[in-house]
Amino acid sequence: MNQKIEKLIKQFAKLPRVGNRAAVRIVLALLQVRDGRAENLAAALLDATENVVPCAVCGCLTDKNTGTCEFCRDASRANGQICVVRDMGDVWTLEKSSVFHGRYHIIGGLISGAAGTMPDDLNISTLPERIKNEKITEIIFALPNTVEGKTTQHYIMSVVGGGVRFSELASGVPLGGDLDYIDDGTLSLAFGGRREL
Amino acid sequence: MNQKIEKLIKQFAKLPRVGNRAAVRIVLALLQVRDGRAENLAAALLDATENVVPCAVCGCLTDKNTGTCEFCRDASRANGQICVVRDMGDVWTLEKSSVFHGRYHIIGGLISGAAGTMPDDLNISTLPERIKNEKITEIIFALPNTVEGKTTQHYIMSVVGGGVRFSELASGVPLGGDLDYIDDGTLSLAFGGRREL
Repeated sequence: MNQKIEKLIKQFAKLPRVGNRAAVRIVLALLQVRDGRAENLAAALLDATENVVPCAVCGCLTDKNTGTCEFCRDASRANGQICVVRDMGDVWTLEKSSVFHGRYHIIGGLISGAAGTMPDDLNISTLPERIKNEKITEIIFALPNTVEGKTTQHYIMSVVGGGVRFSELASGVPLGGDLDYIDDGTLSLAFGGRREL
Repeated sequence: MNQKIEKLIKQFAKLPRVGNRAAVRIVLALLQVRDGRAENLAAALLDATENVVPCAVCGCLTDKNTGTCEFCRDASRANGQICVVRDMGDVWTLEKSSVFHGRYHIIGGLISGAAGTMPDDLNISTLPERIKNEKITEIIFALPNTVEGKTTQHYIMSVVGGGVRFSELASGVPLGGDLDYIDDGTLSLAFGGRREL
Protein backbone atom coordinates (compact mmCIF):
# COMPACT_ATOMS: atom_id res chain seq x y z
CA MET A 1 0.00 0.00 0.00
CA ASN A 2 1.12 3.54 -0.77
CA GLN A 3 3.06 5.00 2.17
CA LYS A 4 1.16 8.30 2.32
CA ILE A 5 -2.14 6.44 2.37
CA GLU A 6 -0.92 4.05 5.04
CA LYS A 7 0.20 6.98 7.18
CA LEU A 8 -3.17 8.69 6.82
CA ILE A 9 -5.04 5.51 7.75
CA LYS A 10 -2.87 5.14 10.86
CA GLN A 11 -3.63 8.72 11.90
CA PHE A 12 -7.37 8.15 11.58
CA ALA A 13 -7.19 4.80 13.38
CA LYS A 14 -5.70 6.58 16.40
CA LEU A 15 -8.89 8.62 16.90
CA PRO A 16 -11.46 7.51 19.47
CA ARG A 17 -14.34 5.41 18.10
CA VAL A 18 -12.53 4.88 14.77
CA GLY A 19 -11.28 1.35 14.19
CA ASN A 20 -8.82 0.28 11.53
CA ARG A 21 -11.52 -0.80 9.08
CA ALA A 22 -13.38 2.49 9.49
CA ALA A 23 -10.11 4.38 8.99
CA VAL A 24 -9.56 2.56 5.68
CA ARG A 25 -13.09 3.44 4.50
CA ILE A 26 -12.67 7.09 5.55
CA VAL A 27 -9.38 7.44 3.68
CA LEU A 28 -10.81 5.72 0.61
CA ALA A 29 -13.78 8.08 0.59
CA LEU A 30 -11.53 11.10 0.97
CA LEU A 31 -9.03 10.09 -1.71
CA GLN A 32 -11.38 8.56 -4.28
CA VAL A 33 -13.92 11.37 -4.34
CA ARG A 34 -12.14 14.70 -4.46
CA ASP A 35 -14.82 17.09 -3.29
CA GLY A 36 -12.62 19.22 -1.04
CA ARG A 37 -13.69 17.42 2.14
CA ALA A 38 -10.14 16.38 3.00
CA GLU A 39 -8.77 19.89 2.55
CA ASN A 40 -11.64 21.39 4.56
CA LEU A 41 -11.09 18.89 7.34
CA ALA A 42 -7.36 19.65 7.43
CA ALA A 43 -8.02 23.40 7.51
CA ALA A 44 -10.63 23.06 10.28
CA LEU A 45 -8.21 20.90 12.29
CA LEU A 46 -5.39 23.40 12.04
CA ASP A 47 -7.70 26.35 12.73
CA ALA A 48 -9.16 24.72 15.84
CA THR A 49 -5.88 23.44 17.28
CA GLU A 50 -4.28 26.84 16.78
CA ASN A 51 -7.12 29.03 18.00
CA VAL A 52 -9.09 27.03 20.54
CA VAL A 53 -7.65 27.01 24.07
CA PRO A 54 -8.98 26.19 27.55
CA CYS A 55 -10.51 29.19 29.37
CA ALA A 56 -8.00 30.41 31.96
CA VAL A 57 -10.76 30.56 34.59
CA CYS A 58 -12.94 27.47 34.14
CA GLY A 59 -11.18 25.28 31.57
CA CYS A 60 -13.94 25.38 28.92
CA LEU A 61 -12.62 25.33 25.36
CA THR A 62 -12.81 28.81 23.86
CA ASP A 63 -11.34 31.13 21.24
CA LYS A 64 -7.76 32.14 21.95
CA ASN A 65 -8.39 35.85 21.37
CA THR A 66 -11.38 36.14 23.73
CA GLY A 67 -9.32 35.20 26.80
CA THR A 68 -12.14 33.77 28.90
CA CYS A 69 -14.99 31.57 27.66
CA GLU A 70 -18.57 32.45 26.77
CA PHE A 71 -19.80 31.29 30.20
CA CYS A 72 -17.27 33.29 32.23
CA ARG A 73 -17.92 36.40 30.09
CA ASP A 74 -21.70 36.10 30.45
CA ALA A 75 -22.70 38.24 33.49
CA SER A 76 -26.16 36.64 33.55
CA ARG A 77 -24.52 33.35 34.50
CA ALA A 78 -22.94 34.84 37.63
CA ASN A 79 -25.70 33.27 39.80
CA GLY A 80 -23.40 32.01 42.54
CA GLN A 81 -23.37 28.45 41.21
CA ILE A 82 -20.47 26.50 39.79
CA CYS A 83 -21.06 23.12 38.20
CA VAL A 84 -18.00 20.87 38.46
CA VAL A 85 -17.63 18.54 35.46
CA ARG A 86 -15.01 16.20 34.13
CA ASP A 87 -14.60 17.51 30.60
CA MET A 88 -15.92 19.77 27.86
CA GLY A 89 -18.18 17.02 26.51
CA ASP A 90 -20.11 17.12 29.81
CA VAL A 91 -20.50 20.90 29.46
CA TRP A 92 -22.00 20.42 25.98
CA THR A 93 -24.34 17.73 27.30
CA LEU A 94 -25.54 20.01 30.13
CA GLU A 95 -25.87 23.04 27.84
CA LYS A 96 -27.98 21.05 25.39
CA SER A 97 -30.43 20.16 28.17
CA SER A 98 -30.62 23.81 29.39
CA VAL A 99 -31.01 22.81 33.04
CA PHE A 100 -28.11 24.82 34.44
CA HIS A 101 -27.55 28.55 34.13
CA GLY A 102 -24.43 29.14 36.23
CA ARG A 103 -20.77 28.67 35.48
CA TYR A 104 -18.66 25.60 34.99
CA HIS A 105 -15.41 24.25 36.31
CA ILE A 106 -13.75 21.55 34.22
CA ILE A 107 -11.38 19.43 36.27
CA GLY A 108 -10.10 17.48 33.28
CA GLY A 109 -10.37 13.95 34.66
CA LEU A 110 -11.06 11.92 37.80
CA ILE A 111 -8.80 10.82 40.63
CA SER A 112 -7.95 7.21 39.89
CA GLY A 113 -5.30 4.95 41.33
CA ALA A 114 -5.74 2.50 38.48
CA ALA A 115 -5.22 5.15 35.77
CA GLY A 116 -2.55 6.89 37.85
CA THR A 117 -4.46 10.20 37.93
CA MET A 118 -3.58 12.14 41.07
CA PRO A 119 -5.29 15.31 42.41
CA ASP A 120 -2.37 17.41 41.17
CA ASP A 121 -3.07 16.27 37.60
CA LEU A 122 -6.52 17.86 37.75
CA ASN A 123 -7.70 21.47 37.58
CA ILE A 124 -8.86 21.69 41.22
CA SER A 125 -6.47 24.04 43.04
CA THR A 126 -7.95 27.19 41.47
CA LEU A 127 -11.46 26.43 42.73
CA PRO A 128 -11.16 28.06 46.24
CA GLU A 129 -9.91 31.28 44.61
CA ARG A 130 -12.85 31.24 42.16
CA ILE A 131 -15.36 30.75 45.00
CA LYS A 132 -14.00 33.91 46.68
CA ASN A 133 -13.67 36.00 43.50
CA GLU A 134 -17.02 35.10 41.99
CA LYS A 135 -19.00 35.03 45.28
CA ILE A 136 -19.99 31.41 44.75
CA THR A 137 -22.60 30.00 47.15
CA GLU A 138 -23.10 26.52 45.71
CA ILE A 139 -20.89 23.92 44.09
CA ILE A 140 -22.88 21.37 42.07
CA PHE A 141 -21.05 18.16 41.27
CA ALA A 142 -21.97 16.66 37.90
CA LEU A 143 -19.26 14.01 37.87
CA PRO A 144 -19.79 10.40 36.74
CA ASN A 145 -21.58 8.32 39.36
CA THR A 146 -18.62 5.98 39.81
CA VAL A 147 -16.08 5.25 42.54
CA GLU A 148 -13.64 7.61 40.81
CA GLY A 149 -16.31 10.31 40.51
CA LYS A 150 -17.23 10.09 44.20
CA THR A 151 -13.58 9.99 45.28
CA THR A 152 -12.88 13.11 43.26
CA GLN A 153 -16.00 14.81 44.66
CA HIS A 154 -14.94 14.14 48.26
CA TYR A 155 -11.44 15.33 47.57
CA ILE A 156 -12.74 18.61 46.10
CA MET A 157 -15.04 19.13 49.13
CA SER A 158 -12.06 18.69 51.47
CA VAL A 159 -9.98 21.16 49.46
CA VAL A 160 -12.73 23.81 49.28
CA GLY A 161 -13.77 23.39 52.92
CA GLY A 162 -16.71 25.40 54.33
CA GLY A 163 -18.43 28.68 53.38
CA VAL A 164 -20.24 27.17 50.41
CA ARG A 165 -23.05 24.64 49.87
CA PHE A 166 -22.27 21.41 48.06
CA SER A 167 -24.74 19.38 46.05
CA GLU A 168 -24.64 16.51 43.65
CA LEU A 169 -26.99 15.43 40.86
CA ALA A 170 -30.03 13.55 42.23
CA SER A 171 -31.20 10.10 41.29
CA GLY A 172 -31.59 9.85 37.57
CA VAL A 173 -27.93 9.28 36.90
CA PRO A 174 -27.70 5.49 36.56
CA LEU A 175 -25.11 3.89 38.84
CA GLY A 176 -21.85 3.45 36.95
CA GLY A 177 -23.19 5.66 34.18
CA ASP A 178 -21.66 8.45 32.19
CA LEU A 179 -23.29 11.87 31.60
CA ASP A 180 -22.82 11.19 27.93
CA TYR A 181 -25.63 8.68 27.69
CA ILE A 182 -28.37 10.40 29.69
CA ASP A 183 -31.41 11.91 28.00
CA ASP A 184 -32.36 15.54 28.70
CA GLY A 185 -35.47 14.63 30.71
CA THR A 186 -33.54 12.45 33.16
CA LEU A 187 -30.85 15.07 33.41
CA SER A 188 -33.48 17.71 34.21
CA LEU A 189 -34.91 15.53 37.00
CA ALA A 190 -31.44 14.98 38.38
CA PHE A 191 -30.75 18.70 38.50
CA GLY A 192 -34.11 19.47 40.17
CA GLY A 193 -33.69 16.80 42.86
CA ARG A 194 -30.08 17.49 43.69
CA ARG A 195 -29.19 16.50 47.26
CA GLU A 196 -27.26 18.66 49.75
CA LEU A 197 -24.18 17.01 51.19
CA MET B 1 -20.55 26.02 21.25
CA ASN B 2 -17.41 27.62 19.86
CA GLN B 3 -17.72 28.14 16.10
CA LYS B 4 -14.36 26.63 15.19
CA ILE B 5 -15.17 23.53 17.25
CA GLU B 6 -18.61 23.23 15.70
CA LYS B 7 -17.10 23.46 12.22
CA LEU B 8 -14.56 20.76 13.01
CA ILE B 9 -17.25 18.44 14.40
CA LYS B 10 -19.31 18.94 11.24
CA GLN B 11 -16.31 18.06 9.07
CA PHE B 12 -15.73 14.84 11.00
CA ALA B 13 -19.42 13.93 10.99
CA LYS B 14 -19.37 14.03 7.17
CA LEU B 15 -16.90 11.12 7.05
CA PRO B 16 -18.19 7.58 6.42
CA ARG B 17 -18.76 5.48 9.58
CA VAL B 18 -18.46 8.55 11.82
CA GLY B 19 -21.73 9.68 13.41
CA ASN B 20 -22.32 12.99 15.12
CA ARG B 21 -21.65 11.63 18.62
CA ALA B 22 -18.39 10.01 17.50
CA ALA B 23 -17.38 13.29 15.81
CA VAL B 24 -17.91 15.15 19.11
CA ARG B 25 -15.76 12.62 20.99
CA ILE B 26 -13.03 12.77 18.33
CA VAL B 27 -12.87 16.57 18.45
CA LEU B 28 -12.87 16.57 22.26
CA ALA B 29 -10.00 14.09 22.32
CA LEU B 30 -8.03 16.14 19.79
CA LEU B 31 -8.59 19.50 21.48
CA GLN B 32 -8.37 18.47 25.14
CA VAL B 33 -5.18 16.45 24.88
CA ARG B 34 -2.64 18.33 22.79
CA ASP B 35 -0.25 15.59 21.78
CA GLY B 36 0.22 16.67 18.17
CA ARG B 37 -2.28 14.15 16.80
CA ALA B 38 -4.47 16.84 15.26
CA GLU B 39 -1.53 18.52 13.52
CA ASN B 40 -0.20 15.17 12.29
CA LEU B 41 -3.62 14.21 10.96
CA ALA B 42 -3.96 17.54 9.14
CA ALA B 43 -0.47 17.18 7.63
CA ALA B 44 -1.13 13.59 6.52
CA LEU B 45 -4.44 14.68 4.98
CA LEU B 46 -2.85 17.48 2.98
CA ASP B 47 0.11 15.32 1.96
CA ALA B 48 -2.13 12.51 0.72
CA THR B 49 -4.67 14.70 -1.09
CA GLU B 50 -1.88 16.57 -2.82
CA ASN B 51 0.35 13.65 -3.74
CA VAL B 52 -1.87 10.62 -4.15
CA VAL B 53 -3.62 10.32 -7.53
CA PRO B 54 -5.31 7.50 -9.47
CA CYS B 55 -2.94 5.54 -11.74
CA ALA B 56 -3.50 6.72 -15.33
CA VAL B 57 -3.64 3.09 -16.50
CA CYS B 58 -5.64 1.14 -13.93
CA GLY B 59 -7.06 3.70 -11.51
CA CYS B 60 -5.24 2.43 -8.39
CA LEU B 61 -4.28 5.19 -5.96
CA THR B 62 -0.59 5.95 -6.29
CA ASP B 63 2.09 8.59 -5.74
CA LYS B 64 1.79 11.55 -8.10
CA ASN B 65 5.45 11.49 -9.08
CA THR B 66 5.60 7.80 -10.02
CA GLY B 67 3.07 8.19 -12.85
CA THR B 68 1.73 4.64 -12.87
CA CYS B 69 0.99 2.51 -9.80
CA GLU B 70 3.07 -0.23 -8.13
CA PHE B 71 1.04 -2.94 -9.94
CA CYS B 72 1.39 -1.43 -13.42
CA ARG B 73 5.13 -0.85 -12.88
CA ASP B 74 5.71 -4.41 -11.62
CA ALA B 75 6.72 -6.51 -14.70
CA SER B 76 6.19 -9.74 -12.72
CA ARG B 77 2.47 -8.92 -12.58
CA ALA B 78 2.19 -8.83 -16.40
CA ASN B 79 0.72 -12.37 -16.42
CA GLY B 80 -2.05 -11.62 -18.92
CA GLN B 81 -4.71 -11.26 -16.24
CA ILE B 82 -6.67 -8.17 -15.28
CA CYS B 83 -8.92 -8.23 -12.24
CA VAL B 84 -11.81 -5.78 -12.56
CA VAL B 85 -12.82 -4.28 -9.20
CA ARG B 86 -15.10 -1.51 -8.02
CA ASP B 87 -12.70 0.53 -5.90
CA MET B 88 -9.30 0.75 -4.23
CA GLY B 89 -10.63 -0.87 -1.07
CA ASP B 90 -11.30 -4.05 -3.05
CA VAL B 91 -7.72 -3.98 -4.35
CA TRP B 92 -6.43 -3.78 -0.77
CA THR B 93 -8.70 -6.66 0.26
CA LEU B 94 -7.43 -8.82 -2.61
CA GLU B 95 -3.79 -7.88 -2.01
CA LYS B 96 -4.09 -8.81 1.67
CA SER B 97 -5.27 -12.29 0.72
CA SER B 98 -2.44 -12.75 -1.86
CA VAL B 99 -4.61 -14.82 -4.22
CA PHE B 100 -4.13 -12.70 -7.32
CA HIS B 101 -0.85 -11.81 -9.00
CA GLY B 102 -1.94 -9.94 -12.12
CA ARG B 103 -3.01 -6.37 -12.67
CA TYR B 104 -6.12 -4.48 -11.65
CA HIS B 105 -8.68 -2.28 -13.31
CA ILE B 106 -10.71 -0.05 -11.02
CA ILE B 107 -14.00 0.99 -12.58
CA GLY B 108 -14.94 3.32 -9.74
CA GLY B 109 -18.53 2.21 -9.14
CA LEU B 110 -21.33 0.04 -10.50
CA ILE B 111 -23.96 0.71 -13.15
CA SER B 112 -27.11 1.53 -11.21
CA GLY B 113 -30.37 3.06 -12.36
CA ALA B 114 -31.36 3.79 -8.76
CA ALA B 115 -28.12 5.64 -7.96
CA GLY B 116 -28.03 7.23 -11.43
CA THR B 117 -24.64 5.72 -12.28
CA MET B 118 -24.34 5.25 -16.04
CA PRO B 119 -21.58 3.35 -17.91
CA ASP B 120 -20.01 6.67 -18.93
CA ASP B 121 -19.48 7.57 -15.26
CA LEU B 122 -17.22 4.54 -14.86
CA ASN B 123 -13.64 3.83 -15.93
CA ILE B 124 -14.54 1.19 -18.54
CA SER B 125 -13.75 2.66 -21.96
CA THR B 126 -9.97 2.29 -21.58
CA LEU B 127 -10.21 -1.46 -20.96
CA PRO B 128 -10.17 -2.66 -24.66
CA GLU B 129 -7.02 -0.58 -25.23
CA ARG B 130 -5.37 -2.11 -22.17
CA ILE B 131 -6.22 -5.64 -23.32
CA LYS B 132 -4.42 -4.95 -26.60
CA ASN B 133 -1.43 -3.09 -25.12
CA GLU B 134 -0.79 -5.47 -22.24
CA LYS B 135 -1.56 -8.71 -24.15
CA ILE B 136 -4.33 -9.61 -21.70
CA THR B 137 -5.79 -13.12 -22.05
CA GLU B 138 -8.19 -13.17 -19.09
CA ILE B 139 -10.48 -10.68 -17.43
CA ILE B 140 -11.43 -11.72 -13.89
CA PHE B 141 -14.47 -9.95 -12.47
CA ALA B 142 -14.29 -9.38 -8.70
CA LEU B 143 -17.35 -7.14 -8.47
CA PRO B 144 -19.98 -7.36 -5.71
CA ASN B 145 -22.35 -10.29 -6.21
CA THR B 146 -25.38 -8.02 -6.61
CA VAL B 147 -27.73 -7.03 -9.44
CA GLU B 148 -25.62 -3.92 -10.02
CA GLY B 149 -22.40 -5.95 -10.01
CA LYS B 150 -23.75 -8.46 -12.55
CA THR B 151 -25.21 -5.70 -14.75
CA THR B 152 -21.85 -3.93 -14.79
CA GLN B 153 -20.06 -7.21 -15.53
CA HIS B 154 -22.30 -7.94 -18.53
CA TYR B 155 -21.90 -4.41 -19.81
CA ILE B 156 -18.09 -4.68 -19.64
CA MET B 157 -18.20 -8.05 -21.47
CA SER B 158 -20.24 -6.47 -24.28
CA VAL B 159 -17.81 -3.54 -24.55
CA VAL B 160 -14.68 -5.72 -24.57
CA GLY B 161 -16.17 -8.31 -26.96
CA GLY B 162 -14.15 -11.42 -27.88
CA GLY B 163 -10.45 -12.28 -27.99
CA VAL B 164 -10.16 -12.69 -24.25
CA ARG B 165 -11.46 -15.13 -21.62
CA PHE B 166 -13.85 -13.86 -18.97
CA SER B 167 -14.25 -15.30 -15.50
CA GLU B 168 -15.92 -14.33 -12.28
CA LEU B 169 -15.23 -15.25 -8.67
CA ALA B 170 -16.61 -18.71 -7.79
CA SER B 171 -18.98 -19.56 -4.99
CA GLY B 172 -17.70 -18.23 -1.73
CA VAL B 173 -18.93 -14.73 -2.31
CA PRO B 174 -22.21 -14.68 -0.38
CA LEU B 175 -25.17 -13.55 -2.46
CA GLY B 176 -25.72 -9.81 -1.98
CA GLY B 177 -22.34 -9.61 -0.26
CA ASP B 178 -19.53 -7.11 -0.51
CA LEU B 179 -15.82 -8.02 -0.98
CA ASP B 180 -15.18 -6.01 2.13
CA TYR B 181 -16.56 -8.61 4.51
CA ILE B 182 -15.08 -11.81 3.13
CA ASP B 183 -12.29 -13.66 4.94
CA ASP B 184 -9.08 -14.56 3.09
CA GLY B 185 -9.84 -18.29 3.02
CA THR B 186 -13.20 -17.84 1.32
CA LEU B 187 -11.65 -15.36 -1.07
CA SER B 188 -8.95 -17.86 -1.94
CA LEU B 189 -11.58 -20.57 -2.69
CA ALA B 190 -13.49 -18.11 -4.82
CA PHE B 191 -10.39 -17.28 -6.85
CA GLY B 192 -9.49 -20.94 -7.32
CA GLY B 193 -12.97 -21.98 -8.45
CA ARG B 194 -13.62 -19.09 -10.78
CA ARG B 195 -16.11 -19.94 -13.51
CA GLU B 196 -15.68 -19.20 -17.24
CA LEU B 197 -18.51 -17.22 -18.79
